[in-house]
Amino acid sequence: MATHLATSFYQQGFEIVQVFSKTLENATKLSQTTNAKPINSLNLLNNEADFYIICIKDDAINEVLQRIIFKGKIIAHTSGSIPIDVFKTNSYQNYGIFYPLQTFSKEKAINLKEVPFCIEGNNNDTENQLFEMAIHLSDHVHFVSSEQRKKLHLAAVFACNFTNYMYTIANDITSKNDINFDILKPLIKETANKIMENNPATMQTGPAIRKDTAVINNHLEMLSDDKDYQAIYKLVSDSISNQ
Amino acid sequence: MATHLATSFYQQGFEIVQVFSKTLENATKLSQTTNAKPINSLNLLNNEADFYIICIKDDAINEVLQRIIFKGKIIAHTSGSIPIDVFKTNSYQNYGIFYPLQTFSKEKAINLKEVPFCIEGNNNDTENQLFEMAIHLSDHVHFVSSEQRKKLHLAAVFACNFTNYMYTIANDITSKNDINFDILKPLIKETANKIMENNPATMQTGPAIRKDTAVINNHLEMLSDDKDYQAIYKLVSDSISNQ
Repeated sequence: MATHLATSFYQQGFEIVQVFSKTLENATKLSQTTNAKPINSLNLLNNEADFYIICIKDDAINEVLQRIIFKGKIIAHTSGSIPIDVFKTNSYQNYGIFYPLQTFSKEKAINLKEVPFCIEGNNNDTENQLFEMAIHLSDHVHFVSSEQRKKLHLAAVFACNFTNYMYTIANDITSKNDINFDILKPLIKETANKIMENNPATMQTGPAIRKDTAVINNHLEMLSDDKDYQAIYKLVSDSISNQ
Repeated sequence: MATHLATSFYQQGFEIVQVFSKTLENATKLSQTTNAKPINSLNLLNNEADFYIICIKDDAINEVLQRIIFKGKIIAHTSGSIPIDVFKTNSYQNYGIFYPLQTFSKEKAINLKEVPFCIEGNNNDTENQLFEMAIHLSDHVHFVSSEQRKKLHLAAVFACNFTNYMYTIANDITSKNDINFDILKPLIKETANKIMENNPATMQTGPAIRKDTAVINNHLEMLSDDKDYQAIYKLVSDSISNQ
């Protein structure tokens, strides 16, 4: 994510002063596309820049924040789940969140323009400046409080992680029965496309919403060899039927 | 679906002899784009055509099959769940399945070229002829037995119906917290796109696959007002963690 952000900022005409990484090799790699100075020690940090962006693992954020001697203007982290209060533990005055909501894969290029950014600042001025930074990268910038960000993360678990698991189960069923999973891909695409313009609740199809118990019982029986899948099928179908 | 199929066949140069519907109004509407004769009584059915396609509700198929006096060549239905044996109850000799696997919405145009067709015939010659018909409409034609079709339908419930329900839950969580559901849409698109080229099991992300119990317990607590969603969250997360 650091690479994506730094490169995009640089392409938008921002000066990237330094890139820090624990290894100089990584810092150098990242600095090459951004004309930045690579550093591997926080002691070498230029502490008077306009904007600092902490793009590291959640559980390292607090420790790194304690070690920065800061005279800069704004500091922000990119995590979905760490609350804004993490900055209170140091003498930071203007801070916030700069969180791109996307599932990043190393191998796959991402067009940041289409990635939603969730912005939060500890005061109006900081929040507006973070917003201005984000709209240089993306067409979709939102103000999201730490409380909302928690709920958004929960919603994303259903919309992304659990959805991917439904694909995994479908793939498992097809491969066990010598059916090419590709057959389902146009259906998967269309299911996602449909809700771009429509409320998903009104798009629900299938045996559960029709309360077609004959088909449901038949499916539960087909799943008798996999108690996990069977339990998921039953629970989700019951929940759909009860809507 | 009947409209989509008849129109596409006509555009591919096939002659559509007749279109039957219980109401002459519907039959006429459909016949207009296909230059076919509309009929509203099965007694008027030309019984010597090359190909008959039964594109009606599942529970009406058997009854209609009993009422056709048939001297034609091939007859097929378009249902995902009715087995091929339904044709045995009459004197049909060459019959099969002509099943487009897609979620059709009246309002939304569908490009049939991208819709997978599942073909089954009661003998090789019929199966090949059904295949030849289907490749005039679609680039994705597959031979699928009645047994496989049942499993494919089960897999589609997970990949399409349950996935849509995960979107519904996410939408419910965001709207209850004054968050615009649109924020999640790029993530939903990317989650579907990722598995077009990759096995979904290898693409799994989120707290459950990381066995991040702190986040999971936090999420379960946030869901304490909705026992259905909480139970689904727990069951699906447990299943992902146990993979």
